Amino acid sequence: MDRDNILLTPGPLTTTLRTKLAMLKDWGSWDADFNALTARVRAGLLAILNAQESHAVVPLQGSGTFSVEAAIATVVPRDGHLLVLDNGAYCKRMGRVASLMGRRTTIASRAEDAPIEPADVERLLAADSSITHVGLIHCETGTGIVNPLPEIAAICERLGRGLIVDAMSSFGALPIDARALRFDALVAASGKCLEGVPGMGFVFIRHEVLAACAGNSHSLAMDLHDQHTYMARTGQWRFTPPTHVVAALAAAMDQYEEEGGQPARLARYTGNFDTLVGGMAALGFQTFLAPEHLSPIIVTFLAPDDARYDFKAFYAGAKARGFMLYPGKLTEVETFRVGCIGAIGRAQMQQAVDAVAHTLREMGVAPARTVRAHGGTMA
Amino acid sequence: MDRDNILLTPGPLTTTLRTKLAMLKDWGSWDADFNALTARVRAGLLAILNAQESHAVVPLQGSGTFSVEAAIATVVPRDGHLLVLDNGAYCKRMGRVASLMGRRTTIASRAEDAPIEPADVERLLAADSSITHVGLIHCETGTGIVNPLPEIAAICERLGRGLIVDAMSSFGALPIDARALRFDALVAASGKCLEGVPGMGFVFIRHEVLAACAGNSHSLAMDLHDQHTYMARTGQWRFTPPTHVVAALAAAMDQYEEEGGQPARLARYTGNFDTLVGGMAALGFQTFLAPEHLSPIIVTFLAPDDARYDFKAFYAGAKARGFMLYPGKLTEVETFRVGCIGAIGRAQMQQAVDAVAHTLREMGVAPARTVRAHGGTMA
Ligand SMILES: Cc1ncc(COP(=O)(O)O)c(C=O)c1O
Ligand SMILES: Cc1ncc(COP(=O)(O)O)c(C=O)c1O
Repeated sequence: MDRDNILLTPGPLTTTLRTKLAMLKDWGSWDADFNALTARVRAGLLAILNAQESHAVVPLQGSGTFSVEAAIATVVPRDGHLLVLDNGAYCKRMGRVASLMGRRTTIASRAEDAPIEPADVERLLAADSSITHVGLIHCETGTGIVNPLPEIAAICERLGRGLIVDAMSSFGALPIDARALRFDALVAASGKCLEGVPGMGFVFIRHEVLAACAGNSHSLAMDLHDQHTYMARTGQWRFTPPTHVVAALAAAMDQYEEEGGQPARLARYTGNFDTLVGGMAALGFQTFLAPEHLSPIIVTFLAPDDARYDFKAFYAGAKARGFMLYPGKLTEVETFRVGCIGAIGRAQMQQAVDAVAHTLREMGVAPARTVRAHGGTMA
Repeated sequence: MDRDNILLTPGPLTTTLRTKLAMLKDWGSWDADFNALTARVRAGLLAILNAQESHAVVPLQGSGTFSVEAAIATVVPRDGHLLVLDNGAYCKRMGRVASLMGRRTTIASRAEDAPIEPADVERLLAADSSITHVGLIHCETGTGIVNPLPEIAAICERLGRGLIVDAMSSFGALPIDARALRFDALVAASGKCLEGVPGMGFVFIRHEVLAACAGNSHSLAMDLHDQHTYMARTGQWRFTPPTHVVAALAAAMDQYEEEGGQPARLARYTGNFDTLVGGMAALGFQTFLAPEHLSPIIVTFLAPDDARYDFKAFYAGAKARGFMLYPGKLTEVETFRVGCIGAIGRAQMQQAVDAVAHTLREMGVAPARTVRAHGGTMA
């Protein structure tokens, strides 16, 4: 049967046919029509954050990590000091990216099952005035936990530190308002909650900050100041853009607006989430995070505490039934993840839960009864 | 009329419908099916160069420049010294990339209308034993000139220096045989002569060199050693791959093999080139390069020496007739460029020449009679 599987992975994810059909055209990257497409995408991105007055948005080829690296390289001066707030895998990656490029980096780690505590951030910043910037993952996709962006933004503003937000998996679904909170840079990508295809990211940079960023970057490809200056002058990308990916993103954003923008997207994902978590609980699954910390982006489930369980076989069973699950990203406990994002609704999520039930039955496995781990304060 | 224009731009270029249709599917980037797709693409790329024994090929998200930067960052040690052989815009960009990332860089420039002289390279290397690596652009797309790769590779091998080749616009069309010449790294991309869509590059790295590259890179995203190690272990990309771009490249490579591989591709492009250059000469156009230096990749024409000529209007006229031309990239003389590459043949190229003729007539312009500039020896 030639029907595509549904991706329950948090990017690449399932996109609509309309989004994919937008890729059936070759665009001249130098042409005015393509420049207009880029301009339309950028205007739409700024509107999602209400950032038209405060920020510029700079697109960048590559995956989301490229945009995270570019944001740090561009915004943090070479003698800056970045504090990375770490409660998961993508936080750790941000720390690695920053220290590899030679920026002084401090990684403050806490357990993965609790959000970053604003009080910890305040304490850490008060104790070290050399910290110029704070790096925060909004939704840590490794677990699905959402960190308190508004509170941390307020602390950074009050204490005069820059804030770099990796909003890769939350942008477009969770509310973020640039008029209500201050950030120097915010990073997201085409293939997440906007439901485009993967291949480009984009970074919002506060106008006041951007002006001072010339020469910070150690990399030509990742110099967002240079890209922004060039684009402001010519309307063009500096280097060959992923034209088909840009066209797909433009089509996906049209559908985003037609659906009702961020509130509608969040409502749909919340429906997916409710169907998923309710259905999985009925099968006996426990979530890694306590219920109050779950997000409608991605959910980490504890693996069944049963010798007959094996992720590979579980994955294969769900795949044979039409659904692609996602492996866990935790080292301490065995887990798997299920994304709530993508061009799917409650009906598809119920089918996915049913597929999981059939797979478990086939494997002869009873779901998990593992006890949750507990969080701690930040190092 | 809703018929797509033909791109006479050297990437993005016109792709076949079959290549674009391959993007109508969402792939799970963690899934075994996608890993197999990546493996198939990598095996096909190695086969094009006969590099199965000697080199690994590492794919990288982003545009071609990202792969050039990654190749230098990965292969040239931090205390290395790169000599960039410069006869055009992409050579200059390679020099900028290398020096920005902090590698000691010497740029040896000569005029843009003559190929790099092997004797100059020999002289420069003999005079400076601190030079560890040579950077060469195979086909300098800024003019279309082809540099003598085999001769320069032989010199580098004899004098014990590494060679990094930017073969972006030649790979797949001009013959390159890894069994016959030695290079440390060779860079190309999806959206050039393989006729995929833009969005990823790939770097061939000699096995012996690759092993020593750990820790060279200043950038996590651009660390090809890290990407290669991870891919060797897992079959996966480290960061979200541009899945649709990869699928399009796989489809494009199927067609490449069906057409007859490199010799067939070169023959088709040579047909396009003959039709173009013959047709344009009949209209009175002169090429920027002397006939013996022209390549069937892209041709730079001198702009008509006529006050009524204006590139914007010329471009608009050709576009209205179905063809996208490409602006010149030279500072000294006014030129425009026409690509010979992409999923087109002689018929389309004849139509393009006819469109140029109609446009000139409409503009009341007589083509160029400018005298060519002359080359010199290397600084
Ligand atoms: C929070 C977060 N940051 C960074 C990334 C890295 O993105 P990519 O895999 O596109 O490089 C992801 C990807 O899922 C993410 O969820
Ligand atoms: C020889 C050469 N090098 C590098 C590049 C840069 O590639 P991109 O524009 O994809 O970054 C190109 C692009 O046309 C090229 O022709």
